[in-house]
Order: sequence, then structure tokens, then C-alpha cells
Amino acid sequence: MAVINIGILGLGTVGSGVMNIFQENRERIREYTGVDIQTKKVLVRNMSKPRDTFFENGTLTADPQEVLNDPEIDIIVELMGGIEPAFSYVLQAIENGKHIVTANKALIATHYEELFKTASQNGVEIRFEGSVGGGIPVIDTITARLAGNRIDEIVGIINGTTNYILTRMSKDGMGFEEALKLAQDKGFAEADPTSDLNGQDVSFKLAILAAISFGIGIEQKDIPYEGITKIAEDEISYAMESGYTVKLLATARKREDKLEIYVHPTLIPNHHPLAAVSNEFNALFIRGNAVGELMLYGKGAGSLPTGSAVVGDILDIVKLKRKSAKTGSRPIANKEDLRIIGEDTGSYYIRLQVIDEPGVLGAITTVLGKNGISIASVSQQALGQKDVPVIFVTHKVKREKLDKGLEELRELKDIVKEVACILRVEGY
Amino acid sequence: MAVINIGILGLGTVGSGVMNIFQENRERIREYTGVDIQTKKVLVRNMSKPRDTFFENGTLTADPQEVLNDPEIDIIVELMGGIEPAFSYVLQAIENGKHIVTANKALIATHYEELFKTASQNGVEIRFEGSVGGGIPVIDTITARLAGNRIDEIVGIINGTTNYILTRMSKDGMGFEEALKLAQDKGFAEADPTSDLNGQDVSFKLAILAAISFGIGIEQKDIPYEGITKIAEDEISYAMESGYTVKLLATARKREDKLEIYVHPTLIPNHHPLAAVSNEFNALFIRGNAVGELMLYGKGAGSLPTGSAVVGDILDIVKLKRKSAKTGSRPIANKEDLRIIGEDTGSYYIRLQVIDEPGVLGAITTVLGKNGISIASVSQQALGQKDVPVIFVTHKVKREKLDKGLEELRELKDIVKEVACILRVEGY
Repeated sequence: MAVINIGILGLGTVGSGVMNIFQENRERIREYTGVDIQTKKVLVRNMSKPRDTFFENGTLTADPQEVLNDPEIDIIVELMGGIEPAFSYVLQAIENGKHIVTANKALIATHYEELFKTASQNGVEIRFEGSVGGGIPVIDTITARLAGNRIDEIVGIINGTTNYILTRMSKDGMGFEEALKLAQDKGFAEADPTSDLNGQDVSFKLAILAAISFGIGIEQKDIPYEGITKIAEDEISYAMESGYTVKLLATARKREDKLEIYVHPTLIPNHHPLAAVSNEFNALFIRGNAVGELMLYGKGAGSLPTGSAVVGDILDIVKLKRKSAKTGSRPIANKEDLRIIGEDTGSYYIRLQVIDEPGVLGAITTVLGKNGISIASVSQQALGQKDVPVIFVTHKVKREKLDKGLEELRELKDIVKEVACILRVEGY
Repeated sequence: MAVINIGILGLGTVGSGVMNIFQENRERIREYTGVDIQTKKVLVRNMSKPRDTFFENGTLTADPQEVLNDPEIDIIVELMGGIEPAFSYVLQAIENGKHIVTANKALIATHYEELFKTASQNGVEIRFEGSVGGGIPVIDTITARLAGNRIDEIVGIINGTTNYILTRMSKDGMGFEEALKLAQDKGFAEADPTSDLNGQDVSFKLAILAAISFGIGIEQKDIPYEGITKIAEDEISYAMESGYTVKLLATARKREDKLEIYVHPTLIPNHHPLAAVSNEFNALFIRGNAVGELMLYGKGAGSLPTGSAVVGDILDIVKLKRKSAKTGSRPIANKEDLRIIGEDTGSYYIRLQVIDEPGVLGAITTVLGKNGISIASVSQQALGQKDVPVIFVTHKVKREKLDKGLEELRELKDIVKEVACILRVEGY
């Protein structure tokens, strides 16, 4: 099997996630790409730190030049964060003819034009899906999937820390400080959360989204931003009373020849899909002139979600280099490996139409009990009509067991007029 | 500029959408791909039907062989629908070395394995983003973006007709028949809606999603499906009283070596993101072992949304053929063309902290009025404390005008202690 070598700069949260994904899904990735992707060199700050992943001797290095100048490395994966030295390393790698995958929002937002110009001159790809929205495919959707659209508006919740805090304030009545502390305890806020809370983190991400959506060079410093630090109970109460939800939104909207762009805490109506984006989740709402309204929702940060985006970018470049077909079946399993079983078990809502007489409910529950169908709740409305509904909800039960019980109920023709409706009940 | 020729089979709803998108966004697409994409041949049933789009003489044809055998055509776009003759045409095109883009769910669901085997033997691509979820990039996300993930579960609302009907029943208290009639009037349901209402349409789409998510050959006939025709007021009332929403869900879920797969109307808790998917919108919820939970939301049908997916597929193949870099700026406009204006106008929520004295509200509204800031609502809570909040919401106003007004308020130091919080209010 052919080999493609990658070099990784930085083995922090996202870097470890990438290594985990390659380890966990190695077979799947081999079959998908048709090549063996090997991690040839990894730049780390501390050579002696204990690691979860096993690396062969000589893979880890503290010398960036060992990674950047290795002629056998095809793709450099930059996961250091920050602008320097990441920018210098990436430029050097591009000039050495290496493709780039990065999750570094500050780098892309700050040096967008120079990076892409240099990449174009050197015939290499730069992918940066992980730089905005973690595992959510926002970059590829805008740049490739919607390439035939004129984008008119993007509105996003693209900071998990602030969304988690606002959710706790709204749903649990916490104050700002209390919610921040909880976010820190849960790992959703950093020890120094300043750039998350004041909106600056969002402004970097918005600069990237605006650049790819509207094809203009826009710098983070051109984007006015306002964070959530001034939001108090009054705002949360007002929102709840008025049918709104408070969200920190990144907005870029075309108005004729103008681009409105800003980061601002906003009251949005509860019926809007963004209002339902809770906790640490992110979402991007996109309006295109062909696709209409589109929303992408998921985990906007974290080792594995962002790692998923980075791995997706690496595999895309591998596919491109190999010129192999991109679509088609995911060769994960053969028919033999996964047994298709249709509907298995579930909790069910059942509505029977029955005659309104004493003893009916007893007769029904007897049949269900005999068939091992355990009932979580039952309600009967006697309205003095000929047929009345009996609604019951089962505990988890095999579908075939349920069907057998319902078949027996249908045979009680004197009292059960109809098994009128069956719904699944999912707790999620 | 280099030319890539496409041939289109079928000029119905989606075909017309594709032509509109190419026309409307021609410049953007040229700059993005670096080539001129020309529609060389279009197969139509009726040559003399009047068309919105202008076609050069000889473009329209009623003879499929003119399209399939044209040696200058690189990509065949199949938008006829149905299994035959679409399947024969597509197979012939593949054997002629042409790439395929299709939005035909029945074709892909029924002949998945044979199509991809033949395509692989002939070194061509098959793309089918438009076959499930209209403009929502579900296929590319699963096959490419999440290629590094093991997919564990997919749950989707992938039929707009039934979702529209269920929404009207839930939100407007309509009965099934009334909601169906409204859906037909609005163009969300076909004259014969049988395969939408009974769940069969969803089962075709689910067969495709399961094939790409789990890498197994699965046929529509193996998927048990149940539609929404039995749902009555009782179910809607029960759902509303119990904190649930009724949705028609397509589900495929891995349980060890088994795949549960079915289409079933389901009660889902209101807090789940799928519960907020209303009207004709579709959404797909995906759980991967790296990305975690991901949801994609948008218009699942229609001329332009589905056309957007088809055009995305065409451009992807063009990029692949040209081996040109896929990412980077969308060269839509230069800095000169779009003037970045930060925040422009908006409706705002303002909380002031003021002293609790008579005449305060009058002084504040006078300043606002003088600055042309029109107030939509105001509320003051006098709690006998030193500082009390005054909350007002403005009508649409320029941000700079608002800021000037707020500046003057800050100067009323005797009564205004603080401009404590400013939120935008978006109606959407």
C-alpha cells in the first residue's frame, strides 16, 4: 500500500485528538483513501512529556526544521495556535511544496491573503476547516458545497464558552460569575477566558467566514465586537418574558454594495433555529441565493470534534493527490458484518379506540401484561361517546413483542374498535 | 478560458433550477473554477415547450443518444427521476467515460452497488448530493468531511411534505386533511402525495444514507416504514401536553454488529434540536465517534435548493478534473466592491441603571427623542432601591445615532448611573 507522510506541528489538545482518530479509525481511513497515512515527524515543545500515543523513535522532535524540511513529508498539519512562529513555519512549508492543514483561527484571520497567494504560487492546498466551528463543516460547505451560490448572510453562534454561560444563565437562573465558574470546571472555558468573553475570539472566526463567504480581504481589527460580560439577570428575565433568547452572534450581511459585519449579544426570537442551540454547541446559519436557509450545528471545539475536521481536511488532500474518486460507499463493513434488523426495541405511544364501558382498561392491561409489555403511563378519556381513545405509553419493548400484543388486542373485537396510532417515543 | 461541457438529462423542476443558478451566478462560477461550464446538450421530452432559459439551436434534443454519445461532454447530469430509463442512460454514460451527477434517490437507492462498481471500473465519479435533503450537504458531509469518523447513528427529518403537515397540525391545530390540502396549495405536497405520506419516499433516502454511513449495501425494501396518515388530534394534544413534538423520523443506529433501521413517526422531546425543525425544512442528525453530534438543517426540496446541490457536485468534479485548489477565497468581489461598514442599523435593547426619582423617565426620553431615537417599549421597575433598571427597546436606528444618544444620557450624571447593557434585537 502506498504511503503518504504527514508532519504535525504541535501536540496539544487538537494534535492529540488527531492522533487518537488516526489510531481508532486506521482501517476505515486506509480503505477510504487507499493509502497508509503515516505520522513521520511531530514537533513538540517538551520531548520528555509522557504521551498517550506511542511514537517510534525519532518521530518526536523539538526542531521545527526537521519537520519542515523533510522531503518525504507531503502534508504539514499546523496545530500550534497563535500567529508566530506558526506563520513563519507554514510559509516555509508552503515554499517547500507541502500542503497545509491548520486549525489556527488567528493565523488564517490575520494572514489570509498572503497565505493563499503563496499557496497558489506553489501549487499547494491550504485547508482550515478546524479553525471555525470545530467539527462542523462550515468552511467546506461555504467554499465548495455552496460554490454556485451568492452568499447573502451568515449568522453564527461560534463560541462555545459564551453559549454555555448564556445557557446556564437562562435555563438554571445562574448569575454570570457562577455560570463562568461552572464552564471552567467543565472545561468549556479557559483559565483566562478574556478573549472568549469579550467577543474577540468570535471576531477572528467571523473574519475567516466573511473572507470565504464574500470573497473580500477582511481583517479582524475591522470587525466591531462586543462580548457578554455586561449581561445580567435583567436581560435574561426580559428575554424570557418577551419570547426571546440571548445569544452572542457573529453576523455578516450584504446590503447592496455594503457589508454589515459585527459581533454582538443579541435577542433572537425563540422560534428561530439558532435559539435552540444550547450549551457548548455552535451553529452557523447561512443564506445563499440558491440554497436558501441552511444551518450547520455541532460541537465547536474540543480534541476529537476539531480533530475530526483536521482529519477530514487531511483525507481530502490525500484523495486529491491520489486523484481517486471521493464519493461512494464507506467501505467500513460488508453485509456480513452488520446484520440489518429493521426496528428492534423502543418505547411506544399507542392509541386504541375502545368502547366506553367499565372493565375495558382492565381487559387491555391484562393482554399487555400477558405479552410482557410493561406500561409506563395510561390515560382514558370518557366523553360519553361510542368510541373513546385509550392512550398508553410502554416501557422499552421489542417491536415484535408489541406487535403480538396489539394483535391480541385487535381480537378483543367487542371492546377494541381499532389500534388507531402507534408512535415511537425517543428520549435522546 | 478552457471549456467543460455538460449534458443534462431532464429539464423539470431541478433541471430548470440548475440552469437558473448557472445563469445567475455565471461570473462567480467562472472565477471559482477557472473554466467556462457550457450546457452542450439537454434531453427533453417535449421540444416545443416554452422555456424560461434561452438555449442555442441544437442544444435541446429528444434523443438521449445525442447527449450520451457526445464525445465533447465530460459530465452527465441526470435529473429525470425514476429508475428506468435513467438507470440505462447513466450506465451507458459511465461506460462512455463520463462523470455522473444525479439527484435521483430511487436510482441511487436501487442500484447503488452496480453504479459505483461500474464507475470505479471506468474511473469516473458519481455524485448524488441532491438525492437526499435537497440543498443540505448531507452526502458530502458523511462521505468526505466525516471520513475519519465511525458513524454510529443517523436520525433525520428528510421529507418536507410530512414535516409541513405535522407542523401545521401542531402549531395551527389543523386536522390532517386540512393540513395536507394547505401543503398541496403551497406546493409542498404533490397531487398524488402517497409515497410522501406513507413513508416510502423517506425509506429510499434512508437506504442511501445508510449505505454511505455504514458502508453496507442496503435496499429500500429491507427498511420497514410507517407514515403519518394515522396521526390525529389526539397525538398532537398528547405531544403538546407531555413536552414532545411529533416528527416523521428516518433512523439508522448501530448496536454492536446490528443495524437498527426504520422510518417511523416519533415523539421527540422539545429540547432536542430536531424538534425545532419546522415547516418544509429538513434536518439530519449525525453521531460520529470523533465529531460527536452534528446536525445539518435546510430546505430539503425545491428547484433552487436541490439545484444548488447539483451545481455543487458539478463544480466539485470540475475542480477535481482541473486539479485546482479547492479552498481559498471566493473571488466574488474585491475590497473595492464591498464596503465594510461594521454595525449599521438595528433595533436595540438598552438597560440603564438610574436613580429612582420622579421625572427621570421624562429626562431620558427627551434626550432620546432629541437624537431621533424612537422607542418601541420602555419599562421601569421601582423597587425602592438606590439604582433601578430602566429597560427600553428602540425601533430601527443607526448605531452611531444610538451611541450619540447614549453618550448624552451618560452625561446626565445626576440621574443616569450607567448604560449597563446593550443588546441587538433581531426579528428574523
